Amino acid sequence: MGHNQAIISVRDYMQQTGRQARAASRLLARAATRAKNQALEVTAQTIREQAAALTAANRLDLDEARSAGLDPALIDRLELTPVRIEAMAEGLMQIAALADPIGEISGLNYRPTGIQVGRMRVPLGVVGIIYESRPNVTADAAGLCIKSGNAAILRGGSEALRSNQAIAACIRAGLAAAGLPTDAVQVVETVDREAVSALLGMPEYVDVIIPRGGKGLIERVSREARMPVIKHLDGICHVYIDDKADLEKAVRVVYNAKTQRCGTCNAMECLLVAEGIAETVLPRLGRMYQEAGVELRGCERTRRILPGIKAATDQDYATEYLALILSVKVVPGLEAAMDHIARYGSQHTDAIVTEDFTRARRFLTEVDSSSVMVNASTRFSDGFEYGLGAEVGISTDKFHARGPVGLEGLTSQKFIVLGDGHIRT
Amino acid sequence: MGHNQAIISVRDYMQQTGRQARAASRLLARAATRAKNQALEVTAQTIREQAAALTAANRLDLDEARSAGLDPALIDRLELTPVRIEAMAEGLMQIAALADPIGEISGLNYRPTGIQVGRMRVPLGVVGIIYESRPNVTADAAGLCIKSGNAAILRGGSEALRSNQAIAACIRAGLAAAGLPTDAVQVVETVDREAVSALLGMPEYVDVIIPRGGKGLIERVSREARMPVIKHLDGICHVYIDDKADLEKAVRVVYNAKTQRCGTCNAMECLLVAEGIAETVLPRLGRMYQEAGVELRGCERTRRILPGIKAATDQDYATEYLALILSVKVVPGLEAAMDHIARYGSQHTDAIVTEDFTRARRFLTEVDSSSVMVNASTRFSDGFEYGLGAEVGISTDKFHARGPVGLEGLTSQKFIVLGDGHIRT
Repeated sequence: MGHNQAIISVRDYMQQTGRQARAASRLLARAATRAKNQALEVTAQTIREQAAALTAANRLDLDEARSAGLDPALIDRLELTPVRIEAMAEGLMQIAALADPIGEISGLNYRPTGIQVGRMRVPLGVVGIIYESRPNVTADAAGLCIKSGNAAILRGGSEALRSNQAIAACIRAGLAAAGLPTDAVQVVETVDREAVSALLGMPEYVDVIIPRGGKGLIERVSREARMPVIKHLDGICHVYIDDKADLEKAVRVVYNAKTQRCGTCNAMECLLVAEGIAETVLPRLGRMYQEAGVELRGCERTRRILPGIKAATDQDYATEYLALILSVKVVPGLEAAMDHIARYGSQHTDAIVTEDFTRARRFLTEVDSSSVMVNASTRFSDGFEYGLGAEVGISTDKFHARGPVGLEGLTSQKFIVLGDGHIRT
Repeated sequence: MGHNQAIISVRDYMQQTGRQARAASRLLARAATRAKNQALEVTAQTIREQAAALTAANRLDLDEARSAGLDPALIDRLELTPVRIEAMAEGLMQIAALADPIGEISGLNYRPTGIQVGRMRVPLGVVGIIYESRPNVTADAAGLCIKSGNAAILRGGSEALRSNQAIAACIRAGLAAAGLPTDAVQVVETVDREAVSALLGMPEYVDVIIPRGGKGLIERVSREARMPVIKHLDGICHVYIDDKADLEKAVRVVYNAKTQRCGTCNAMECLLVAEGIAETVLPRLGRMYQEAGVELRGCERTRRILPGIKAATDQDYATEYLALILSVKVVPGLEAAMDHIARYGSQHTDAIVTEDFTRARRFLTEVDSSSVMVNASTRFSDGFEYGLGAEVGISTDKFHARGPVGLEGLTSQKFIVLGDGHIRT
């Protein structure tokens, strides 16, 4: 937008962005796999070459965020470290290496009538992504959209605008090198909040909206959007340590789930412990968490075992801390743990630690969350870790996409029918 | 509702229906395959035994519909002939014979970190279906919901209330025989239109809405629903006869696509003919359609070949006739045919008749409709014909489900992760 800001309205600008995206999506839908991969590879290469420029742009955003006194968790997400820059490039290379989902024909079988019926995978069209803080979303989302044949309109947080613009320049270079329309990925270049309303109000140009951010944003988007929304609400993740758990595995998993990176949605926010093992495992965990600076908030029974800690309220159990705080509850067993998860969880990621086959099987089957785990840290709930090659978000919905949304979540399938003059009788 | 109508409001009644559906859905989600199949088989058996009662109830609906002067296409759909009653029972037996989709684990593979990641298929929860006329939807939808572990709230048209109640009684008998909650399938027993608004306003009880009916209904549902909608708009289906078509196959396919049952959404509404073959094929088709009572409306070039017919307007090309009317247009070739379909089609079902491999491949890839066919009648676009064992609708959306929606369209997938104390580093 830049210099045109004075002469065209935000709404006109967004309409123009939408029209350009729709036109680009038609070309991208039938782009050759080779061209899409080349765009991703050149983008990755450009990101590596431009690492210093990305860091410099990011530093401006970071300085401003710190001066504005933004939340530390948010500043953590905003930062583009060399490791994270390399991860962006590596993520794009991984996406390039994945099989092209588009055009894939599956289940093509003969029916008794003689026709062959199967499905062909197709792009959704134009994907709108609204996000906050993390600039790496720009590269991940663009990469997944390009590979899945979708055009993207990316609306990042105002606090990350310079970082996002720097990344967008790398993406445009990649698209241009591959002979693909540079409008296939557009970063919205105005921080005006009206841009979001405009985006949500153009179903003729945008086929799906993916909001990534706080509850306020998600709720606003769900309310206003006139197209389908893939939404990610809270990540109130639980680990239940069963009394048949292996103690070493339990300690390792729940320590990692809380402390490895507490500002992410897949970090554990509530630890459930079977009463039969609580007195054995909690003192040891209490010491470990204390050393790591984790504030514990416990139920009455937890506080009898760990007398120094604060009491957990109902509000605690319903809170996504995104910080070094953990609520702890002693429960009678599996049933009570699953009841607690059903009541307070956000259907994001929940895990059990147990050696008991039947309890593991029940937990996997009966817990209604987008990721359900046995003897593994909730921190694995992530598109990269799942082999999706990056994610545009984690869906806590059940409709269309659930859990980390990678390439497949950005596609649909149409039916194809092959015959030889077949008619219905 | 019946006698309670005076003492509780429609909104309270719907809330109660919703609460009961939610409670039943939890039980159905973990019901054994054997129990679900038994419910379907006993329902089918009951429908066969009660055929006379179903016909009698249907006759009351039909008489009233005829006195009210309802549209003939609507009355055709309303009628429960012996063949259609047997088809309902047979449909339920087919659903029972299908593999249970729930709990299916797919793609469970080891990741480099050592965890195993896969997906498990789960029900959506509670499915609300709003439909008009066709009482067989009651049995088909209930069957698919039961097998896929979902509870159903069915809101049929007021003109079919007696037929639907008679079918619902058979379904309740089936559920009860299998020890499943009879609230798993509830037919809304009030014709009050406020019931629809109430249904659309309870996302806490209803996970997805499937409207089946006229444009007015679909648009109202899309506007009001506070949960995702699987919607089916028009079926403006095209067949394009390419100049490389086999003439005999072309004539057979386009005659069937229009005349086999013209009141359905998968009937052809517009015939596109390549100019190179128009003078050969149109006179013959003109005679056949005339004998079948099909009114043709043609473009100028068509009318030069078939001088007696009416002119087709832009409005004709955008109309779903659901009647023995067909618009005909002569086009230069494949590109023009695909342009016409992109402009006027409803992304439902479109077919090409050709012997040319590359043109067939392009048509399949580039036409963006829920079903795309080569050398087959559009009338095949149907859950039964596709082997889905019945359908709750045909989605013209791209999101979640596209084309005929059977068992799989009523499910979602959660991720499962298996480890041995694995942590993320």
